[in-house]
Amino acid sequence: MPAELSAGPLRLCSEQAQRLSACGSVQSSIMSTQFLVEARAGAARAGRLSTPHGEVETPVFMPVGTVGSVKGVPQDLLEELGIEILLGNTYHLYLRPGVEQIRKLGGLHRFMSWPRAILTDSGGFQVFSLNNLRRISEDGVTFRSHLDGSSHFFSPENAIEAQIGLGADIIMAFDECTEYPAERERLRTSMELTLRWAERSKRYFEEHKSEAPWSDEPDRMQALFGIVQGGMDPALRKESAERTREVGFSGYAIGGLSVGEPRHVTREIVEATVEYLPPDQPRYLMGVGTPEEIVEYANLGIDMMDCVLPTRAARHGLLFTSEGRISIKQAQYAGDPGPLDPNCGCRVCRRYSRAYLRHLYASNEILAQVLNTIHNLSFYLDTMRAVRHSISLGRGARFLSEVWSRAKP
Amino acid sequence: MPAELSAGPLRLCSEQAQRLSACGSVQSSIMSTQFLVEARAGAARAGRLSTPHGEVETPVFMPVGTVGSVKGVPQDLLEELGIEILLGNTYHLYLRPGVEQIRKLGGLHRFMSWPRAILTDSGGFQVFSLNNLRRISEDGVTFRSHLDGSSHFFSPENAIEAQIGLGADIIMAFDECTEYPAERERLRTSMELTLRWAERSKRYFEEHKSEAPWSDEPDRMQALFGIVQGGMDPALRKESAERTREVGFSGYAIGGLSVGEPRHVTREIVEATVEYLPPDQPRYLMGVGTPEEIVEYANLGIDMMDCVLPTRAARHGLLFTSEGRISIKQAQYAGDPGPLDPNCGCRVCRRYSRAYLRHLYASNEILAQVLNTIHNLSFYLDTMRAVRHSISLGRGARFLSEVWSRAKP
Repeated sequence: MPAELSAGPLRLCSEQAQRLSACGSVQSSIMSTQFLVEARAGAARAGRLSTPHGEVETPVFMPVGTVGSVKGVPQDLLEELGIEILLGNTYHLYLRPGVEQIRKLGGLHRFMSWPRAILTDSGGFQVFSLNNLRRISEDGVTFRSHLDGSSHFFSPENAIEAQIGLGADIIMAFDECTEYPAERERLRTSMELTLRWAERSKRYFEEHKSEAPWSDEPDRMQALFGIVQGGMDPALRKESAERTREVGFSGYAIGGLSVGEPRHVTREIVEATVEYLPPDQPRYLMGVGTPEEIVEYANLGIDMMDCVLPTRAARHGLLFTSEGRISIKQAQYAGDPGPLDPNCGCRVCRRYSRAYLRHLYASNEILAQVLNTIHNLSFYLDTMRAVRHSISLGRGARFLSEVWSRAKP
Repeated sequence: MPAELSAGPLRLCSEQAQRLSACGSVQSSIMSTQFLVEARAGAARAGRLSTPHGEVETPVFMPVGTVGSVKGVPQDLLEELGIEILLGNTYHLYLRPGVEQIRKLGGLHRFMSWPRAILTDSGGFQVFSLNNLRRISEDGVTFRSHLDGSSHFFSPENAIEAQIGLGADIIMAFDECTEYPAERERLRTSMELTLRWAERSKRYFEEHKSEAPWSDEPDRMQALFGIVQGGMDPALRKESAERTREVGFSGYAIGGLSVGEPRHVTREIVEATVEYLPPDQPRYLMGVGTPEEIVEYANLGIDMMDCVLPTRAARHGLLFTSEGRISIKQAQYAGDPGPLDPNCGCRVCRRYSRAYLRHLYASNEILAQVLNTIHNLSFYLDTMRAVRHSISLGRGARFLSEVWSRAKP
């Protein structure tokens, strides 16, 4: 599909609809996800992703609930924050408590009591991060568990099988996340492997897509996203995007970024990739980013992002505020009676002082992790809400990026 | 005051009122706490303790918020559980963040954003628990911080000064918690020291009681409770109770129990002590207990209790339910889709399965500690609500104790 379509009118579409009928004619009885672009501002779009477990307004930041829990935050508080979609890690859930256990208990939604949307990664990224503990072949990856050293094998087929068992609304093709830096030849070899795995992922999915734990109703089905690779080479990214689209998915992720490269390179590769992705399907940039970055990438036309940063940073006392980053462990906050962020309406900023949060952190209290995580997630969610609002008004989202940059210490 | 008064009619009273006017005539302009016994059933009483930060229905179980946080649970969830009074540990708060820091920030209520009642212990129990790190003299106790080994000194005067600075609604006289077992001569020496310290605590408090961070209004004042010691010797307990009453406090605690003695001994000493305490003032049994025990002691006429058990056990996966104790780490729960306690309406039992709670615990997730603590506190609060209801109907509370005993594995 040509890139100029991205400047076209608003269109209702999805991978299934696209393949079975003309765009705009919704085949709801076999729909998995629907994606509707509602407004545009430059390359940025504000949209609505309909999943079997509710609607997701985009651009969206997806908090990471690694093993079925956003660390430290009860699910009702996640709902209160307005989180519409969570990310679960297949690798972690596969090892503990195990896919079969979750499947028998009705799938990940029911297991963790999360009625809204979930996306699972394929497990590939974690497996490739194991470095010395894994061995790659055409068939798949043999790896050792970081928990007990036991040996396991992930292939496109069983990574999809695992994700069908977990039952997320959106699942990901199994890819090889190429290391950084890498030579062009290595990038091509890796990209070609990812493309072959994309086809195998798609084939296995098509044969088993009705087997999600909750897909007893024919109109509720999982959606499979493909992943574009190609390292930091724009030509390979273009080729990867085009050939991944040929395989055909409900949405497209950009993988292999935020792996150590300079930020301007990330931006260049995102720009070089986005233009070859379908304009009417969701675009997911994996593993980003800071508040500034998620605004920037939304501005480039990205619809979905995820990152452990807000939750992990919170547990280490690094808090994002409208006035810049705060390292709450610093002694300067010990006597500070003010709220963490005077412009934030979250339940932490409404109730507690910086002095108290600093004390909790210094005393190694569990509540520090709980409250810090709630605030950082609230800040990310608020940021995305502001971005969506800005796009819906036809304004670019970059003004927020500038706000955060100015506020940075 | 003779013991037989405890069988008398319902009376409105308090230490202040008792000393300044006839019972029943409330001197509200100089009131700290008021205690009203509303119903009796045998020795048990259901009452209402009015504090500068709200009313507390008794018998009450006070969760422990050691350093200004009930570990893992945000304050709004504590409110939702119906918790009306928390306990803070002076020793811990004195070391971190320091009394002066909390005083400058408006006192412990404002510091931790807890608008309801707080009781602080005197720090004595923690200091005496330091064993090799402390040295006792007539004047007080020199001890080393468990955090950094720095040297500190607690006397009756500065323990009260610290508690005035923290600004709890109810503060405790500085006592020596006698070790168990101990010879009679040692018990008497220790009890006599506690009595001299009670007088010094009282004297210092009377001179400074208007200095709490929030006592800018003359009718809002802290209350000081005395502590009865005497080890496992009923005669010494009687003497300690009578002589502590002579010093005169707003309420009376029974200290030095639950220190390793058999449970039937605890019970005997509670019974032997309660009958010498004023019938119209609150009675606080320190450091107890299991669900069965808190029911049993309420039945003996105890109005207030505190213990780290529900919170600490929760963090170790030991959960109290209407069907008995559950060690959630056990593999038998890995596939159990049922609620933790089918008879519990807390937000944990309403939403999550045993399988999920078991998974969180096995995965060392922070949320395990959060959810387990919420449930255990809910169970303790529900238990106390049932006890109060039972007493208000004129029934003994022991039936609940029997329920728990039957349910125990």
